Amino acid sequence: MSAEIEGCWGGSPSLRFRYRQCMTDSDLLRNRWDAISARLVSNSADALIVSTGFDLVYLTTYEARESERLTAFVATPDASTPTLLVPKIEMPEVPTAATFTVEGWTDDEDPVAMIAELIDGARRVLVSDEIWGHYLLRLIALMPDTRFVSLSDSLGGLRSIKSDVEMHALQTVGGLANGVAAQIQRGEVPLVGKTELEIQADVMNRLIAAGHETVEFCIVASGPNSASPHHHPTDRIVQPNEMVLFDFGGKHRGYCSDITRCVFTGSIPDDVAATYATLKKAQQAAVDAARPGALLSDVDAAARSVIADAGFGDNFIHRTGHGIGTEVHEQPYVKAGNEELVAVGHAFSIEPGIYLDGRWGMRLEDIVVVLDDGALRCSTTEHDLVEVHA
Amino acid sequence: MSAEIEGCWGGSPSLRFRYRQCMTDSDLLRNRWDAISARLVSNSADALIVSTGFDLVYLTTYEARESERLTAFVATPDASTPTLLVPKIEMPEVPTAATFTVEGWTDDEDPVAMIAELIDGARRVLVSDEIWGHYLLRLIALMPDTRFVSLSDSLGGLRSIKSDVEMHALQTVGGLANGVAAQIQRGEVPLVGKTELEIQADVMNRLIAAGHETVEFCIVASGPNSASPHHHPTDRIVQPNEMVLFDFGGKHRGYCSDITRCVFTGSIPDDVAATYATLKKAQQAAVDAARPGALLSDVDAAARSVIADAGFGDNFIHRTGHGIGTEVHEQPYVKAGNEELVAVGHAFSIEPGIYLDGRWGMRLEDIVVVLDDGALRCSTTEHDLVEVHA
Repeated sequence: MSAEIEGCWGGSPSLRFRYRQCMTDSDLLRNRWDAISARLVSNSADALIVSTGFDLVYLTTYEARESERLTAFVATPDASTPTLLVPKIEMPEVPTAATFTVEGWTDDEDPVAMIAELIDGARRVLVSDEIWGHYLLRLIALMPDTRFVSLSDSLGGLRSIKSDVEMHALQTVGGLANGVAAQIQRGEVPLVGKTELEIQADVMNRLIAAGHETVEFCIVASGPNSASPHHHPTDRIVQPNEMVLFDFGGKHRGYCSDITRCVFTGSIPDDVAATYATLKKAQQAAVDAARPGALLSDVDAAARSVIADAGFGDNFIHRTGHGIGTEVHEQPYVKAGNEELVAVGHAFSIEPGIYLDGRWGMRLEDIVVVLDDGALRCSTTEHDLVEVHA
Repeated sequence: MSAEIEGCWGGSPSLRFRYRQCMTDSDLLRNRWDAISARLVSNSADALIVSTGFDLVYLTTYEARESERLTAFVATPDASTPTLLVPKIEMPEVPTAATFTVEGWTDDEDPVAMIAELIDGARRVLVSDEIWGHYLLRLIALMPDTRFVSLSDSLGGLRSIKSDVEMHALQTVGGLANGVAAQIQRGEVPLVGKTELEIQADVMNRLIAAGHETVEFCIVASGPNSASPHHHPTDRIVQPNEMVLFDFGGKHRGYCSDITRCVFTGSIPDDVAATYATLKKAQQAAVDAARPGALLSDVDAAARSVIADAGFGDNFIHRTGHGIGTEVHEQPYVKAGNEELVAVGHAFSIEPGIYLDGRWGMRLEDIVVVLDDGALRCSTTEHDLVEVHA
């Protein structure tokens, strides 16, 4: 199968299986579990339950199917070998490692009761954010004297501090997306006369050709549609003399890219140029603010204040950024109210935007990784609003 | 974009958007909400919270992104216009309908507190199965005197009774998958000398070519791998004289197919033939048992007893079936302990299997829809184990 075909089926378990194989490493898992169990102790947590999702991959390398059949990593902080509870029919697919024991349950058994038994007596239990409410309600009913609390609220996410290897992976995949953004800026992607959906297909193929194994998302928003931050591309045909906003990313060896650039299909009007200058300044201010020890809320405020000072405060309608790693959105979040400190190893987006309903919107985004001396961008292609004639 | 290209990016919001457009129908939504609100009253429920997932699509036609930003349909049974709470940045993408009011929340607001306000005073609240534990824990903390219970435990799923239109959609998409299974049985898909992954790619392309817009899953399990019910295809090369199990499905206009057939790449040994005869008999017994008014557990027992009587009880290691509709797995489940009654409008798989570790496995699956006089198969291609020389 060519890389292109593989990319098309990016969600397939078989493909994910192969990513997983690349990452399997018992020592790595041992180090992670040792660090996390120490954090559990500091947090006075008696147990940890991690259901399907990327926290589970982080702990076990296992990309479980999310389904009505529960998969969960269940551990107490002192456990040398935590339990990975899986549907018995999926046991042959589960990787083995010295760091956990796999236990299968059959369709006539109750996996929630099995969890309750594994953590019997626990008073304070951390559960992963994405565990289904269905399971959690049953667990609460079975363990009425236990307090269940959110893992991310308690520990700020398991995966928010990246290792050097992970930061390198983010730089690598960021470079792939950066290259496609540069192609757009150079006018290599036909725009005027094409529909947003046609352009989306073109960009997705370029993301795969650049080396991504999957495309995770690909926003193409033209003209007034660019004022919708999470626009879904439509049959709208791109016109001359308008804004086109691109926000896309994919995965390479399990890590995500995410970049936003805007181009203008003609001569940029003065008011658009002036507003974009504000946006660019805001983005730079947040990058500069993203130094170890700063508050994440202050990084948000750095971008927000530039935009507010220019009179567009009400037009910046979202947070400044989100963490990124094996998921496109993960801890930490760069937003008002987040009193967590920026730390070496954090990786997040810095993506202020200004949206004028019915007219246009603009956003400028890079992923940064935080090093001792500040934030390093994973994408460096032109930060100005570029005129393209394509 | 050709159908083939569209299929490749089956997970893209833009494509889902277009399915949604096909289904939008205010009268349909009104009828559904009226029926569900009556069921809430019968269940003494004071409120309903439905987060991201296909229950939300059913109620609103909105395929929300599942993310750390909460989307939820929030209603009391007497509400003529329930509230659809969405991240403000996604509001431009949300369909409007007379049956609900859209309310946006910004990144500096707390959507869980907004829900608590909307259902203030509710004592018993049903929540959709897939709501993230993270939100639910916060809601429980905000509303300590309220009892939150599982929607599916209380009502057996919102979508388990299909309309005539939905049953027709399942027949249609079932026919598409059936055609691909027939191609395999006729020896049109090269097997011997190919890897499971190569065959998977071939079959996925055929599913798209047959008219599916997406492939939801595609198991190809050869030789001893067929003993793993949820096998992820690998680089293993298919050999002559062995079992190859296929289990695949996709979506057409929002509804799912799901079919399993096994073929044998050579002369079928007597012991395999005899075991397969048991499997086929078991599947037929369950289809015959799936009549309105029977217990779902009895449908499971009908297949299980045939297999147990033949001495393979311990080798049938999963339930007999799962509901299907806009999701591949949904209510109702055909399994031991499910005392729910088979009803007209149910749609579920009947898929007994027999698995011999290290040797081979076999499974035979059709989707059936339940009519007044019994279960109607959505796939009819050869139910025998077919010898193929491909």
